[in-house]
Amino acid sequence: MVTGAGAGEGEPRHPCLLDEELLVIENPFYTPEAQGAYQLHSLGSFALEEGGGIPDLQLAYATYGELNAAKDNAILIPTWFSGTHATWEQVYIGPGRALDPTRWFIVVVNQIGNGLSTSPHNTDDPSIAMAAFPKVRIGDDVRAQQQLAAELFGIQRWALVVGGSMGAQQTWEWAVRFPEQVARAAPIAGTAQNTPHDFLFTRALLDAITSDPGWAGGAYRSNTEVADGLRRHADIWAIMGLSTEFWRSGFWKGIELPDVTWDTFEEFQERFVQAVFGAMDPNSLLVQGWKWQRGDVARNTGGDLTAALGRVTATTFVMPIDEDMFFPPRDCAAEQALTPNSELRVLPSIAGHFGLFGFEKTYLDAVDTHLSELLARPV
Amino acid sequence: MVTGAGAGEGEPRHPCLLDEELLVIENPFYTPEAQGAYQLHSLGSFALEEGGGIPDLQLAYATYGELNAAKDNAILIPTWFSGTHATWEQVYIGPGRALDPTRWFIVVVNQIGNGLSTSPHNTDDPSIAMAAFPKVRIGDDVRAQQQLAAELFGIQRWALVVGGSMGAQQTWEWAVRFPEQVARAAPIAGTAQNTPHDFLFTRALLDAITSDPGWAGGAYRSNTEVADGLRRHADIWAIMGLSTEFWRSGFWKGIELPDVTWDTFEEFQERFVQAVFGAMDPNSLLVQGWKWQRGDVARNTGGDLTAALGRVTATTFVMPIDEDMFFPPRDCAAEQALTPNSELRVLPSIAGHFGLFGFEKTYLDAVDTHLSELLARPV
Repeated sequence: MVTGAGAGEGEPRHPCLLDEELLVIENPFYTPEAQGAYQLHSLGSFALEEGGGIPDLQLAYATYGELNAAKDNAILIPTWFSGTHATWEQVYIGPGRALDPTRWFIVVVNQIGNGLSTSPHNTDDPSIAMAAFPKVRIGDDVRAQQQLAAELFGIQRWALVVGGSMGAQQTWEWAVRFPEQVARAAPIAGTAQNTPHDFLFTRALLDAITSDPGWAGGAYRSNTEVADGLRRHADIWAIMGLSTEFWRSGFWKGIELPDVTWDTFEEFQERFVQAVFGAMDPNSLLVQGWKWQRGDVARNTGGDLTAALGRVTATTFVMPIDEDMFFPPRDCAAEQALTPNSELRVLPSIAGHFGLFGFEKTYLDAVDTHLSELLARPV
Repeated sequence: MVTGAGAGEGEPRHPCLLDEELLVIENPFYTPEAQGAYQLHSLGSFALEEGGGIPDLQLAYATYGELNAAKDNAILIPTWFSGTHATWEQVYIGPGRALDPTRWFIVVVNQIGNGLSTSPHNTDDPSIAMAAFPKVRIGDDVRAQQQLAAELFGIQRWALVVGGSMGAQQTWEWAVRFPEQVARAAPIAGTAQNTPHDFLFTRALLDAITSDPGWAGGAYRSNTEVADGLRRHADIWAIMGLSTEFWRSGFWKGIELPDVTWDTFEEFQERFVQAVFGAMDPNSLLVQGWKWQRGDVARNTGGDLTAALGRVTATTFVMPIDEDMFFPPRDCAAEQALTPNSELRVLPSIAGHFGLFGFEKTYLDAVDTHLSELLARPV
């Protein structure tokens, strides 16, 4: 997937020279070394809801555990904005946990455009490379995941679909669009219909990137050329993705990473949040952000959210995070109230939305408690 | 104050040509026509806490009512970030209100750098014009206001100091630095010690401006050259200055302005929030933002916030706004708990921090109720 080379060494290339090799950008963040092992599955030509398509859509996925003969122990996890399967593998999946690979067959599918699945910077197809990448919708991801599960595993029904943030958007879309294929659903820290506030928040995030002259209309040759835009992107995340209380309390002092330390909150912001987003591909973030802004299950029902959520038949635990500043529990509770056979389970995290990264045992214990209870429910 | 002309018409000037006339930028936002009448008072040469000074510091102020013979009916109102005396005059002050000019002598002082008082764009002194404007602290404003009150009115003690947001920062600074001069204090939607979250929030606001190539290191010739940066600045305000519930509920549909309408939340954002900030001077916002980031009464007590707030002798009502996303009631309550003779009075506004603009009668009634009670307290 990630092939070819970056800008050639030696003599500089003429900037107008067409060279398909140049379409692929090597970025060490999007490698098995950085993200853990994954596999690719080609869906072939894939038509998109906004029109056009991806000639050879490849989904990066990872599985944990074994599918049983009845094929009724399968769990699907779609990924969040800027995320990959790695966090789920490292933080949420494990023996003795709710997402126990000795009991369940767990499939984590990286969303389209996330840098591992087919994305602007990793395709050698000039018709979709970089700024030419088409608009992708949450519904496209869900249909792609359905096709993958059918082609690879013959899975007709998920025991559980669970995801955080944009993964929650995909979870909701699954439950509304294909209710008979979802036995249980657990949208964590995300909504079925994106809110105006979130639309504006995401716009600010994306504008931070596109306003950087180094972005060059999407034609940069390395994410490092967009370092300033990615830094400002990360700084907006700092104020919305974390919480006022996270910063006030100095919670960051207890967060540990290998080979890096911080003494002040400014250093934490620089060495953790800025460093993470600075490693990513700008066009990948733009594709995902556009998708996030327009997540809306009511597209299945002519704009009627009540009708859309009324279609859900899965046993559903709606799980917002208490300190989340942009998917606040209030917004999630309003959708839960419209969803048959659902319950509101609020998760505690001082880290707000970024509680998803699992900084706290109390948070992870709460996730496991709720998911274990949900998975024990007869369906 | 606002004199001279913008870039000359006719032949373009050589960009390297020194021309003091060019130092002053005409901006219709900072005029009596836009902001209502005000007066200027020169403090002469004014030394700043960060070093250096302003050779001829002029404060723009407006008064309402009459100072009585005992000089014990004076109320001071310092202004907030990007604000002027206008909102106080139009929204908070009036007969029958708590801030009743038939009973009180009310002095609203525009903060240093706010575009009406001496500011980067309106001075013809090249030593402090535009990017050369010095760093100003909350404590500088408080000392300047003290000097103004003494020179013009002979006021030795305020019956009340009340302000919102950065005006609350100045209110706190008054109560800590000059406790014997403040009988009552009402910091609304602001803190005595700026929080790390607010520091990062403000940084994102300021970076939106300085990352615009049109800002040109502070040497633009018109705020319109920084339109893109001001637009992104306004878009960050939209997600933090207002509230998730403001946007979700469609509260903006009921907000009315002369000569402009909106049918969608994107149009409201463009025609209200972007329009307001787009009219302002970028360097003025930078001066105020730098000041906001560093507001901290503990500078008076060697970094000890408990000791600083313990100095307050004013009867103090701490008044956060319930939906405020960056001066949350929790942060204000923590400071109130450290302040002798204080009470927490939470104000209701779905507009969050921008509730300060007084969109709701319920909010204004609550302000009046609390301020009336505070002003009735014997001191």
